[in-house]
Amino acid sequence: MSEERRGRRSGGRAGRAATRASSAPPVPAYLQRLIKPYELVMDEQLAQIEHNADTILEQVGIEFRDYPTALERWKQAGAEVDGTRVRFPRGLCRKIVQDSAPRQYTQHARNPANNVEIGGNNTVFAPNYGSPFVFDQDNGRRYATIADFENVVKLAYMAPHIHHSGGTVCEPVDIPVNKRHLDMVYAHLKYSDKAFMGSVTAGERAADSIELARIAFGGDLRDESGVERTVMSSLINASSPLVWDDTMLAAAETYAAANQACIISPFILSGAMAPTTAAAVAAQTLAEALGGMAFCQLVRPGAPVIFGSFASSMSMATGAPTFGTPEPAIVLYTVAALARRLGVPFRSGGSLTASKLPDAQAAYESASTIIPTVMAGVNFVLHSAGWMEGGLAFGYEKFMMDADQLGMMMKLGQGLDMSENGQGVDAFLEHTPGEHFLGTAHTFANFETAFYRSTIADNSSFEQWTEDGATTAADRANTAWKEALASYVPPALDDAIDAELLDFIGRRKSGMPDEIG
Amino acid sequence: MSEERRGRRSGGRAGRAATRASSAPPVPAYLQRLIKPYELVMDEQLAQIEHNADTILEQVGIEFRDYPTALERWKQAGAEVDGTRVRFPRGLCRKIVQDSAPRQYTQHARNPANNVEIGGNNTVFAPNYGSPFVFDQDNGRRYATIADFENVVKLAYMAPHIHHSGGTVCEPVDIPVNKRHLDMVYAHLKYSDKAFMGSVTAGERAADSIELARIAFGGDLRDESGVERTVMSSLINASSPLVWDDTMLAAAETYAAANQACIISPFILSGAMAPTTAAAVAAQTLAEALGGMAFCQLVRPGAPVIFGSFASSMSMATGAPTFGTPEPAIVLYTVAALARRLGVPFRSGGSLTASKLPDAQAAYESASTIIPTVMAGVNFVLHSAGWMEGGLAFGYEKFMMDADQLGMMMKLGQGLDMSENGQGVDAFLEHTPGEHFLGTAHTFANFETAFYRSTIADNSSFEQWTEDGATTAADRANTAWKEALASYVPPALDDAIDAELLDFIGRRKSGMPDEIG
Repeated sequence: MSEERRGRRSGGRAGRAATRASSAPPVPAYLQRLIKPYELVMDEQLAQIEHNADTILEQVGIEFRDYPTALERWKQAGAEVDGTRVRFPRGLCRKIVQDSAPRQYTQHARNPANNVEIGGNNTVFAPNYGSPFVFDQDNGRRYATIADFENVVKLAYMAPHIHHSGGTVCEPVDIPVNKRHLDMVYAHLKYSDKAFMGSVTAGERAADSIELARIAFGGDLRDESGVERTVMSSLINASSPLVWDDTMLAAAETYAAANQACIISPFILSGAMAPTTAAAVAAQTLAEALGGMAFCQLVRPGAPVIFGSFASSMSMATGAPTFGTPEPAIVLYTVAALARRLGVPFRSGGSLTASKLPDAQAAYESASTIIPTVMAGVNFVLHSAGWMEGGLAFGYEKFMMDADQLGMMMKLGQGLDMSENGQGVDAFLEHTPGEHFLGTAHTFANFETAFYRSTIADNSSFEQWTEDGATTAADRANTAWKEALASYVPPALDDAIDAELLDFIGRRKSGMPDEIG
Repeated sequence: MSEERRGRRSGGRAGRAATRASSAPPVPAYLQRLIKPYELVMDEQLAQIEHNADTILEQVGIEFRDYPTALERWKQAGAEVDGTRVRFPRGLCRKIVQDSAPRQYTQHARNPANNVEIGGNNTVFAPNYGSPFVFDQDNGRRYATIADFENVVKLAYMAPHIHHSGGTVCEPVDIPVNKRHLDMVYAHLKYSDKAFMGSVTAGERAADSIELARIAFGGDLRDESGVERTVMSSLINASSPLVWDDTMLAAAETYAAANQACIISPFILSGAMAPTTAAAVAAQTLAEALGGMAFCQLVRPGAPVIFGSFASSMSMATGAPTFGTPEPAIVLYTVAALARRLGVPFRSGGSLTASKLPDAQAAYESASTIIPTVMAGVNFVLHSAGWMEGGLAFGYEKFMMDADQLGMMMKLGQGLDMSENGQGVDAFLEHTPGEHFLGTAHTFANFETAFYRSTIADNSSFEQWTEDGATTAADRANTAWKEALASYVPPALDDAIDAELLDFIGRRKSGMPDEIG
């Protein structure tokens, strides 16, 4: 697994980084954490939150709206169905999930070297998701287009510490709303060979996503034992509080039936879609996620599911969502532990911020989200690079800055090296107090790989930095994304497969009138 | 303990914050962590690092330079003294420290409501230390003056989540080098009533610091049992690797003899003053700190000491120090655990950055230091606000941004509220799925205190933010520090004591010629 394979090419800053990295160890396809998760909450407290979630499921229940087959499934599973309200005997959802949902699964990528393991001690970083706007320092904020979408896919492909191509990395608003999913999935398949996410905005768009993946994977998703390989992990958001709607249920059903993974994510702005307190948010998140994950297991026992949690606070003065504050970090640690107890992979966190600029606010808030994300042991991290403005905008400079931080998270996840070389006792025994260690054999043997090398930070002297143009981090990130895109070389894609993908897309597009969203 | 007592006054942004906070709970004088520290390293690995530190102490030893009385003390304590090199039987330093150094101590402030507990589950935030330059957005970077020094003391006094006035918050280079300690200590006593640090640049300057403190505390530091109260915690840096010099030893001896606390801090740029690997840095840090702390105990058994660690990586390309990278975070977690095992308070971390601006680099790096600082359970945090440019500059905007983050750390340290109100089960039982929680009784009861309210972040819509001037975080911090200084009101200081302080300073200054450093 060489740096070259992961898409870095020579040229400019990115090129210099690639050259430097050529003598470094290969970059892994995902983070295998050697550090244990931080357990903020005691076991008996977690058990109490599970009890509270069961109380919500039993006494309040969850709405499954406009999707009668879901109600039928629940009746058969032993839940109490009252109109669209479903109430669950205590422990039912947990049992359904634990009986069949996998603890960990492989998401296959078009390039097998980019397969990712989701669950366990692994962490997979995926880029920003869902922004209708993009921001760059030259042009400011504007609506996203398919050209931006392709740029983000290319940048994520080239970023050594981004493991996954993501899904709706930005909303290509220049494409009709009922057709853009085809162009988005195509971009992931054409411009990257990392794992990706499918469309969830309608059941038939999920089906289209599966069909495109099937073509890209050679016409058949089944492995030698006849089971479909999981090639997509797609985002199924609850309509919190305590509602699952027909759009998401249809997408989830379509994916689960095809053994494709669903990220079952309550989306909670606490104070609005949930009470203000973290323990209440955690109980509600667990209740909603259990309902959604169990639904997938009813559709197809064993279909991969990820327990998702998107939690932010709101400004109680203005009602605006806030990010990078302590309360969502506490929710994150709590719900991550609940997911471990349940025994399913967990999605949360990211590099979140409310800032409109790639400034200090953006960085404080993003770091205050991504560090707990890694420390809590999150398995799948959406929005890990590029998120700005509460998700309304993808930022080009922000993406490059976040991607650099993800490299630091990769290193942090390795923890303390206690090998003989790591302990370095001999280095002291050969050394005289007061002399520096720059020339010692130990330093010479380790200096290439000793420290993570930031691609964005400027560590030079004030004088050197002034001479170099007195740039901000955002200025340097601006240069970096342009250099990266200029040096982009696409991964190989079989011409026949490419033609088949385009043919499928053409037929689907010509079969329906444009819808403007 | 009212917000008012902590120095916030009405007027401008700070005033609005104070008004908002008037209905909020009082701000505590220091952080009493309810969350447990993150244990990155297993016990047997920590024991191995302790073993390695003993190997260094026994076989390599530590230089105690130009300070013969220290060598005498070590001989009597059973160490092997060879010239200025002191080698220690295994376990000797640990035994000396554990026999008498307190696990926790109270540092008394001029205002007893601002006393801080150092050690245990407590975290005390102190501002930036040692910068010869200051930076603000209007004037850029320039040499620091005593006026800047006083400004920083005032800002720290007014910052609700900064618990300690610090020491050399910046270097007042407009005052002769041999006299500025008098003006610095006076500024801490005059413009703040929080706890502070004394001078360490010479033994007699330490003695001057003690004398000024004695005057300020009413002429006698002794408590009812005749023991001097600890009213200063001062920074004693090792000349790493493995050297203690006469300046620091003289200051440490002076303070320890007077029962004043010494923060015994190896200062390690790994790769230069230590090997590149974290386990080696940890062993060396422990060895150097043990030597320094044990020395203080030889001077006066029971004198408070803090195990300090300042660890950064270096750019192996340019030799420049780097901050906010993963390797120092790993060192931090490791050494914090070693300090807990030893049973003494621990100092490390801060809001560190190499950036020359209050930009995204500054924020990513600072957050990547202060979060591990709190998660590792650090007891005393120097440089917690205002540090820029690897410590060369104090930044006014950076200070305000960091101080805001410290408020978030205070909230994070409270962990998960599992009270009945925190669990909020009733809020669900009274609620209908699909409806928001904004109007519920639970939300109404909690919304004032539910979420930390940033004093810097802008969470408004893009449109509102544009209308408000499209500011950066640094722009808002610029406004905030000016408003804070404009609204500053000094704490009460008895006129007679003030006169006595000034008289002492006048006599000391007139008794020596100016030295230009």
